[in-house]
Amino acid sequence: VDQADLCLVNGESQNRVSVADRGLQYGDGLFETLAVRDGRPQLWDRHLRRMAEGCRRLRIQMPEPDLLANEAHRLCTGRGQGVLKLIVTRGSGGRGYGPLLHSSTTRILSLYPWPAFPTQASQHGVRVRFCETRLGINPRLAGLKHLNRLEQVLARLEWDDPSIVEGLMLDQGGRVIEGTMSNLFAVYQAKILTPQLMGCGVAGVMRQRILELLREIELPCRITQLMPEDLRRANELFLCNSVIGVWPISHLEGRQVPGGPMTQRIACALQGALERA
Amino acid sequence: VDQADLCLVNGESQNRVSVADRGLQYGDGLFETLAVRDGRPQLWDRHLRRMAEGCRRLRIQMPEPDLLANEAHRLCTGRGQGVLKLIVTRGSGGRGYGPLLHSSTTRILSLYPWPAFPTQASQHGVRVRFCETRLGINPRLAGLKHLNRLEQVLARLEWDDPSIVEGLMLDQGGRVIEGTMSNLFAVYQAKILTPQLMGCGVAGVMRQRILELLREIELPCRITQLMPEDLRRANELFLCNSVIGVWPISHLEGRQVPGGPMTQRIACALQGALERA
Repeated sequence: VDQADLCLVNGESQNRVSVADRGLQYGDGLFETLAVRDGRPQLWDRHLRRMAEGCRRLRIQMPEPDLLANEAHRLCTGRGQGVLKLIVTRGSGGRGYGPLLHSSTTRILSLYPWPAFPTQASQHGVRVRFCETRLGINPRLAGLKHLNRLEQVLARLEWDDPSIVEGLMLDQGGRVIEGTMSNLFAVYQAKILTPQLMGCGVAGVMRQRILELLREIELPCRITQLMPEDLRRANELFLCNSVIGVWPISHLEGRQVPGGPMTQRIACALQGALERA
Repeated sequence: VDQADLCLVNGESQNRVSVADRGLQYGDGLFETLAVRDGRPQLWDRHLRRMAEGCRRLRIQMPEPDLLANEAHRLCTGRGQGVLKLIVTRGSGGRGYGPLLHSSTTRILSLYPWPAFPTQASQHGVRVRFCETRLGINPRLAGLKHLNRLEQVLARLEWDDPSIVEGLMLDQGGRVIEGTMSNLFAVYQAKILTPQLMGCGVAGVMRQRILELLREIELPCRITQLMPEDLRRANELFLCNSVIGVWPISHLEGRQVPGGPMTQRIACALQGALERA
């Protein structure tokens, strides 16, 4: 977003915000990351619904969906493939945690180039590690894609081997929760499991879409507590988010994950469903 | 900070930062809040030391102390009384949690007017409540004055009665940790206690100064685990931070706190020590 024409702040082409914005001062806001294909943001309605739910929980005034849609359209149309990041913050305020009475939500839309993902990640899978940085437990923030992301930043700083693409994070109780930028599914003989996000973690839009898909194609999936040793017993593991779609995990902590057919089946069904949408 | 002349971003008089700044994107930074008296920031060296320690723990490049001192001087000299907020962030980066290799720390200095505190808070004490929002436990972030402050924002949103000046926060285990913007001390017959901050909380500069003072004047103070019922048994309770100094708590959850002599003695000794510094 060095180019101001790829960024809109409250509807204006610019790439700067006020120092007084509570997004900067306190991380007092939310964000969404959307895949853009053929100039159109994907899963728009689902991302907007999650943002509205986050605004409700944080008591931030949600911007008008039509306004956001118009701004996304201005930014994305004709741009082909990319990543749209949508940030809302509680707006500008004075010093101190209590918000001003009349502060109004800040909207920031930024269009980024499509990331340089490892080639064939979707086919051959990715190498993944466990992070030492753990997620603090706070049910009031759990599930939200809020702007307090220091835990993910510290986790991502733990490795610089470019062949490792993602790190899995545990919570303070040692339960597996998610990747730094993705959600996790584990496939067993007769069931599929994904971590419960009641205490921490981000309830990803793609995770939710996959949960619904698994119901549609009648594959039983259970949201549950998962420990690291549960992952070692899995037949297949895969990651998901709105930009990558589905990535099989080929190696966890250097050990090969069996992998294969079920992840491929789910990825294909998902692709079909997204193309029909 | 609506006036750009009261704000410096990387040494330039302006009140805007890049949308790409990681302070906004992830809360990836730290801050300090300093009292300014006679145009001079108070406890400067201590605040800088804490910021340097925070930068070390978050692996952010600490700006040169002389550079920060010069910028604070430009902003504060001749301004009398005020509050100086110093923010450092990991700088601008692309999308994604991994920082760019060559990003450089952003420095933001803002001078605010002295807050409109309740009159005679230092003499007569303040009314305080318990917040329902709890602090998540994360030893990797504990003690730091970082920019991930949604828990404090949510806690401060819990009340709007202006006669209540501060809210005490518990951690997920129900231990008392601190106020939303202050640290806490509890005075008993033969000892003074203050909460341990190994799992969460901000290790305040004024808290640290008071701990040293108590050692100097040979009042025994122990850093320990404190539960809400421990506060109800206290003879005196007081809050502290760099701007308010010491505030006795006059009422906790509507119930009067005995209060008195020891807090006054500590506040006087502190004032003497700060004036000599």
